[in-house]
Formats: sequence, C-alpha cells, structure tokens
Amino acid sequence: MCQLLGMNCNVPTDICFSFAGFQARGGATDVHSDGWGIAFFEGRGTRVFLEPLASCSSPLAGVVRSYPIHSENVIAHIRKATQGVVALENTHPFMRELWGRYWIFAHNGHLPDFAPELDGSFTPVGDTDSERAFCWLLQNLRQRFASRPPSQAQLFETLHQLTLEVGALGAFNFLLSNGDCLFAHCSTRLSYIIRQAPFAVAHLSDQDLSIDFSDVTTPDDRVAVIATVPLTDNEAWTTMPSGSLWLFEEGAPVTHRLTVTAPQPPDA
Amino acid sequence: MCQLLGMNCNVPTDICFSFAGFQARGGATDVHSDGWGIAFFEGRGTRVFLEPLASCSSPLAGVVRSYPIHSENVIAHIRKATQGVVALENTHPFMRELWGRYWIFAHNGHLPDFAPELDGSFTPVGDTDSERAFCWLLQNLRQRFASRPPSQAQLFETLHQLTLEVGALGAFNFLLSNGDCLFAHCSTRLSYIIRQAPFAVAHLSDQDLSIDFSDVTTPDDRVAVIATVPLTDNEAWTTMPSGSLWLFEEGAPVTHRLTVTAPQPPDA
Repeated sequence: MCQLLGMNCNVPTDICFSFAGFQARGGATDVHSDGWGIAFFEGRGTRVFLEPLASCSSPLAGVVRSYPIHSENVIAHIRKATQGVVALENTHPFMRELWGRYWIFAHNGHLPDFAPELDGSFTPVGDTDSERAFCWLLQNLRQRFASRPPSQAQLFETLHQLTLEVGALGAFNFLLSNGDCLFAHCSTRLSYIIRQAPFAVAHLSDQDLSIDFSDVTTPDDRVAVIATVPLTDNEAWTTMPSGSLWLFEEGAPVTHRLTVTAPQPPDA
Repeated sequence: MCQLLGMNCNVPTDICFSFAGFQARGGATDVHSDGWGIAFFEGRGTRVFLEPLASCSSPLAGVVRSYPIHSENVIAHIRKATQGVVALENTHPFMRELWGRYWIFAHNGHLPDFAPELDGSFTPVGDTDSERAFCWLLQNLRQRFASRPPSQAQLFETLHQLTLEVGALGAFNFLLSNGDCLFAHCSTRLSYIIRQAPFAVAHLSDQDLSIDFSDVTTPDDRVAVIATVPLTDNEAWTTMPSGSLWLFEEGAPVTHRLTVTAPQPPDA
C-alpha cells in the first residue's frame, strides 16, 4: 500500500512543512520506499516531480521540501509497490489532459480485478491498476460530457457514480484534481484538517519539526490538508468515513457523499 | 523566439554538460528569460521540469544541471515569449499521452495564423500557438491510425505531411519524442552533432567549461545533440537545411526529408 497527501487552499500556499513529514515516511519512518511524486497546480499549469526511489533519501525530494512552490492544489504520493514494477512510468501522481485542463491523480489501494475496456482515449503508459483506474475515470467523463466540461455539481455526481463502481472491486483511496478543486475518496483510510484563523503551532509526527502558522499566514487564509495518516501530533484531524467521496474547494470540504451502498437483503 | 535543445542516444546518457551551456542562454548569454523546461524519458516514463522564470538564475535549473538523470531522449526549451503570457501553462515542453506512450514537444517559431479545428481529443491548456500545433499533430495522428500505433516509417511519413501543412504558415522548428526516437524539424535554424568513438574534448560556447567525453563514455556509445545554435565552439556541428524533418534513433540521424515544396509556376 501507499500513502497520499493532498492540499487545497483559498490562496496559493507552499506545502514544505507537510511534505517534510510525508517525505520521511518514504523509507525513514515508514516503508513506502518504491517511489514518490508530487504535483503542483499553479493556475492552469502543473509541475510534477517524480522519482522511482525512496523519498527520504532523494536529493530531488530535498529540493521540493525546501523550495516553496505556491499552489492552490497539490497531490503527493509515496509508493510501496503492490502491482507494477518499480519504474518511473509506475510512479504516482499521473497526469492527463481533458477539456483543456490537466488532471492529476494518485491512488492508494489495490484493484487486482479491475480490467475495464478502454477505448484508447486515455491509455495507461505503465502497468499499475492505479493508472488504469485513472484512465477509465477520464474516459467515462469524456464519454458522458463529450467536449463540454460539466458543472462542478455534475462532475461530483458523475465521479460519485464511477467511484461506486470501481470502489466495489477493492481499496480505492484516491486524490484527483483539475486545478480548480480537489476530490478525495476514502475507501479505507484518509483524514483531513482545515487550518484557518486563529492559526496555531503545528508539530510533525514523523520528525521533530514545528511551525507557527500565525507567522506565515493572513487572517483570510484557509488550507485543507488531506493525508492517509495525520501528519501532526498536536492537531485534531477528521477521519473520513470509509466509503466517502469529498469535494474540497477554497480550502474547505464543500460536499461529501457515501460510496458504500447498504447491503442488499439476500433475495432482493 | 526561443531556443531548442534535444538529445537522442543509444545508451542512457546525462545531459548536464550541454544543459549548462543552454541554461546560460536563458537570461545570461542570451535573452530567452521567459521560462525554461526540460523533459527526460526514462524507459516509458517521463520527468518534466518546468519553470516560468529565467533559467540562468533558476535554482531548479541548477539542480537539473548538476543531477545526472540518464535518458535516451531529452527535449529542452528556453522561452522568449511571442504569443501567450509568461505562465507555467505556456512553458515548453508540453506533454500528452497517445497510444499508451507519452509524447513531448517543444517549438521555436511563430505561427500567428494557425487556428485549426480541434476535435477535443487534445486541447491546449495554455494559449500558445506551439501547444495548439502539438495538439493538432497528435489529433491527426490519432485520426489516421485510430488506436493502433503506426510503424516508425509510417509515423515519419505522416509527420512529414503534417509538418508541410503547418510549416507553410510560419516558423515551425520543433523537437518531438515518444521515448523511442526523436523527430526534429528545422524550419529556420537547427544544428546537430553526433558524438561517438573516438571521443574528444568539447568546450562550451556560452561559458568556459570543457569535458573530455573519452573519460565518461564507452566505445559503443553514440549521442546526437540537436540545438538551435551550436553549444560548443571546438566541434563541427551540422547545420540542417531550412525546411527539413529529421528522425534520430540510437544516437544517429536515420532519415530526413525536405518540408519545403518547390515554388509552383504562376499559372500551374
């Protein structure tokens, strides 16, 4: 299994503090040493840093940690390979373009029996179940809305239906963003925290590092951080229920819906 | 106008030496200070570094210059904006996926009247003529070959036809790679050099830096470097004729063809 980290903000914010804790889990404080990646949206553009190595000892991860890229939507991933060899093409997050916007996707889970028909509009480059699921999601979005992007409500509704379908086949925790908002699906494990005024001191769980967010924010800033396992040990993170899809926008969860259906009676 | 740098090799090779000279042209020895980017293929995977800043003073470009990523196909670009604002989404090279492979494209030129019909299969995210041309090329490749990738000969033939069409509208120097080979189109200015045994010392034009390639190669290595303007001042670069499309594979030019048609008699 892998770990996910996401950030969604109402003003461009750097993720250096959270990434410092997350990076340590890639081979130092945890076992996810088969690659790491992080994608930053800056307006419509994206920057994606990928490396099929342990993040804890990666020189490039050190640069990302100390180089403050300001972004409203960030998705990061550290990998413990379950399907697909350790290689750059299997390193998350993955990127595609749809409707003239980049889409970024990272997955934590295992979908061994997910082998959908793909029509060639989005084709995996590597051989992970994760990239296959991403391609299938985008293919379905394009099929349903053709060349005209849907409203955010329609997009959430459609992703909910598609996530129900894939989620029934295995663990499907994911983060997905088109730069405007961030979708988070908790299949088995995902938490979030909203940081807003009054800001306080946060302390990482994975190393002895603190930050006083009141020193680096303005009163209107709002930041949502989403992670497989909470990154700090002195803040109250919200555990998302298993089987729930969330939409984060401007640093807050604006809607969420269950993606598990109630068990059916045997003869229904 | 911008500048291009490409590399195609028969064994994974780092581009640190060439990039050191190229980077200096982004604001130090030349005026291309509106952004820079570089894409490395490693097997089927790609790493793309982009920054909408002058490369000569970019901390990230410094990292790329000193961090030896070994790749068989590399495309880099430094930008002097002519169309599209200075922004990450307008920074070359651009990436899309087609037939389960990433495609990387960078352009030097100006196509002010190129406004083709796009069917939504590949849509520009930014607002450069370059990304529009890239999307149009890929759309045409997909239309002609559907979901089955063509042979390399068919691919070259089709790109030749498409390049004739776009090249008639303005300056269209470009580098394009799918990780297997590298296509280079010289519309107005592009040169290349092949480095192979016996290897010798090369000295950069843009800074006082030399390398003895015999120290860092094996006798079977072969590397093609393609650049808008030769990067070294003690080697014999080949100037490509204006209006020629080239295919580089395994570090050598394997075919090329003219993309200018002879002027027609007035009443033909």
